[in-house]
Amino acid sequence: MREFFRDDTICAISTAPGVGAIALIRLSGPQAIHICDQLFSRDLHNRGEERVFFGVIRVDDRMLDEVVVTLFPGPHSYTGEDTVEIACHGSTYIQEQVLKACLQRGARLAQPGEYTMRAFQNGKMDLSQAEAVADLIASESEAAHGLAMNQVRGGFSKEINSLRQELIDFASLIELELDFSEEDVEFADRQDLKDLVDRIVLMINKLLHSFATGNVVKKGVPVAIIGAPNMGKSTLLNALLNEERAIVSDIAGTTRDTVEDTLVIDGIQFRFIDTAGIRETEDEIESKGIQRSWDKAREASVVLHLADARELTKERKDALHDELREKGGEKQVIVLANKCDLMAADSPRVDDVLYISAKSGEGLSELQNRLTAHIKSGLSQTSQVVTNIRHYEALQRALESLTDVRNGLNTALTGDFLAIDIRKALYHLGEITGEITADDLLGNIFGRFCIGK
Amino acid sequence: MREFFRDDTICAISTAPGVGAIALIRLSGPQAIHICDQLFSRDLHNRGEERVFFGVIRVDDRMLDEVVVTLFPGPHSYTGEDTVEIACHGSTYIQEQVLKACLQRGARLAQPGEYTMRAFQNGKMDLSQAEAVADLIASESEAAHGLAMNQVRGGFSKEINSLRQELIDFASLIELELDFSEEDVEFADRQDLKDLVDRIVLMINKLLHSFATGNVVKKGVPVAIIGAPNMGKSTLLNALLNEERAIVSDIAGTTRDTVEDTLVIDGIQFRFIDTAGIRETEDEIESKGIQRSWDKAREASVVLHLADARELTKERKDALHDELREKGGEKQVIVLANKCDLMAADSPRVDDVLYISAKSGEGLSELQNRLTAHIKSGLSQTSQVVTNIRHYEALQRALESLTDVRNGLNTALTGDFLAIDIRKALYHLGEITGEITADDLLGNIFGRFCIGK
Repeated sequence: MREFFRDDTICAISTAPGVGAIALIRLSGPQAIHICDQLFSRDLHNRGEERVFFGVIRVDDRMLDEVVVTLFPGPHSYTGEDTVEIACHGSTYIQEQVLKACLQRGARLAQPGEYTMRAFQNGKMDLSQAEAVADLIASESEAAHGLAMNQVRGGFSKEINSLRQELIDFASLIELELDFSEEDVEFADRQDLKDLVDRIVLMINKLLHSFATGNVVKKGVPVAIIGAPNMGKSTLLNALLNEERAIVSDIAGTTRDTVEDTLVIDGIQFRFIDTAGIRETEDEIESKGIQRSWDKAREASVVLHLADARELTKERKDALHDELREKGGEKQVIVLANKCDLMAADSPRVDDVLYISAKSGEGLSELQNRLTAHIKSGLSQTSQVVTNIRHYEALQRALESLTDVRNGLNTALTGDFLAIDIRKALYHLGEITGEITADDLLGNIFGRFCIGK
Repeated sequence: MREFFRDDTICAISTAPGVGAIALIRLSGPQAIHICDQLFSRDLHNRGEERVFFGVIRVDDRMLDEVVVTLFPGPHSYTGEDTVEIACHGSTYIQEQVLKACLQRGARLAQPGEYTMRAFQNGKMDLSQAEAVADLIASESEAAHGLAMNQVRGGFSKEINSLRQELIDFASLIELELDFSEEDVEFADRQDLKDLVDRIVLMINKLLHSFATGNVVKKGVPVAIIGAPNMGKSTLLNALLNEERAIVSDIAGTTRDTVEDTLVIDGIQFRFIDTAGIRETEDEIESKGIQRSWDKAREASVVLHLADARELTKERKDALHDELREKGGEKQVIVLANKCDLMAADSPRVDDVLYISAKSGEGLSELQNRLTAHIKSGLSQTSQVVTNIRHYEALQRALESLTDVRNGLNTALTGDFLAIDIRKALYHLGEITGEITADDLLGNIFGRFCIGK
């Protein structure tokens, strides 16, 4: 796959859609410079060391725009090919016309992620790094950004490759034995191999375990708030949102439409899942709604159970906990006693319950700590965190093959069979970094990118 | 104003808001390079001839992004100041963090249009060119783009300045006379001055006249379609839209949400104004709605009167025309007889009526021709077209002063009074290109820009 150079030139608008002060149109491929030269008042072919050019884009004798063109000659570009970036005024009309002019002169509209796919194909990055570029662009919180950035920089690939390399060394030794099979020698020490496999299995298990956290950090940690109606869910969300909103609105022009009930606490994004109020009921329709609430609670990583501080008793709390454990599955549960400002100062407090007042703000920073502490401890378990379901599945398959290797070692399986299982494990690890790829896999991966990257 | 250098450094996201593959953050001002150096892995201070740098943005020891930084040292930059452009990955999180890091290191968030205001203040362009930058970014059609581009390139300024220069020469001669007032000499030939004033008045009148077209081309030509309900207005709009839609959808990724009932025909944008069906009625509420339709027709540049081809007679058509002339004011009126495909082939056709079938497409290209021909002839009257209400008003004031000059010449007014009126005309012409400016005027002009430009 890596040797496969495409010989056409692709083109796309690489900045966000819509009107802006500036828009970038990016050409990449063997004709990039030639196509730009047909439109642009400066001559990119006969350049010296200059890389940035101010000039005019002219289409069919009409002056379209004054632009800045930046040249990145291959292989020293993002894609590894000749790349030209045209920074034009960000009118949608101008963007469309420049793009159209490039298309008419032989460029092809880039598919989503095609620049990054070419970067991968030209050996500028491996597959897991390329995938992380999309995660980086989609990242909306510090934690998600940190995971993606680490993967872009190759931290995850390095870990996978070091596991692979050790296995490759062993596989080579075992395959060497096969060449001397009539002499009955063992180049690969079986105990060493067993130790290695155990070590790799341990690391893969850690990585697999990290996926639960990595995945929710990337997508936003799902939090279900359940409780009877009018317990103050909206007030609680607004109170939690307040601080964040203030930060965001400091930077005018960057504020996006706020997605309902999504908020970032201490760098971690939480997605609050709306649930119908839960209470005992005989009403059939209402009980169906409540069933859905439990279903949603099951999808969540964290369940906040909101109760009224003035009504909560130990018995009620234990019942809530049991019910959640039974219906919601294993997850972090926090029982919140809201409206504690309305309690009599001397009324007793139930253990293992967080008393808060969404209105006065009491207890909210403790709640934020508990929400983030759980995730942060999950992130700190391993140096690398798996965030990608494709990597998770490949690791699982590698684990299965390694289990076969281990069983083979325990039953003194012959080298040729061991070698097959080791090769299988290597294959699955290689899928992650793209040593082994298939065209449909690439289409699937890069199809999820935005256009222009 | 031009000598007024601001000494702070401004910063903004210059690409369209939202997620994209790439976003640009622009720093401009004396600290631009210094601020970037604090974040960026490359040293912009100790650069050679290099202008484009690939490296890493690091904030408080956290790696934020891999970026391309382009340096435009002043005065060879858009603003005339040192300018640094950071091209980062287009995640909203990364955009905000890079911006925040710049702000924390001493940059200030740019006001809308502040880059262009600095370009004006540093003598990189005059005021009418600066204003045209906003028009260029807002342009959505070939015609609007063409007018803005001409103005950005200084075509309009050149015309105003040549008028101004001739007047200045005369004013100087007249003022010279004042120095020799006791000798009763005439350096400035009165007949020559009269000819010049006549010529300038003629040109200003042409420019003023062009505003009607220039303004609607910039904003979209308002077209009211009136007629009884169910005459096929929607079918007509859809039929007109079809061709344009096909062009736009060729370029995936650039298609914006279509604004209801706006369409571009042959490079000119038309805004179709919704009106209630118009018919004779006794009903009070309905007749109020119909009154509003007439009001809207009055705002329009073009009125399309849609009738049923099978019912239209010469008497009815003349009545329609008279009614429009009376209630809608002076404008282009086109009477359309729709559903002509349902007419008997031998039925007589009324003169001065365009027979169309929105369903079959018959007559639609003729309709498009009539819509655009009117505007195009308006645009071709003068080499320069006024699109800006501020320029229009300044030209009007200049015209008033020149009328005073002409009256003064006819009544043999003395040189000192003539000089005052000429200076007034010069002042108003100077307002257009920004020779004469006031701070609040600048705030008003640049406040309408987008942030980042």
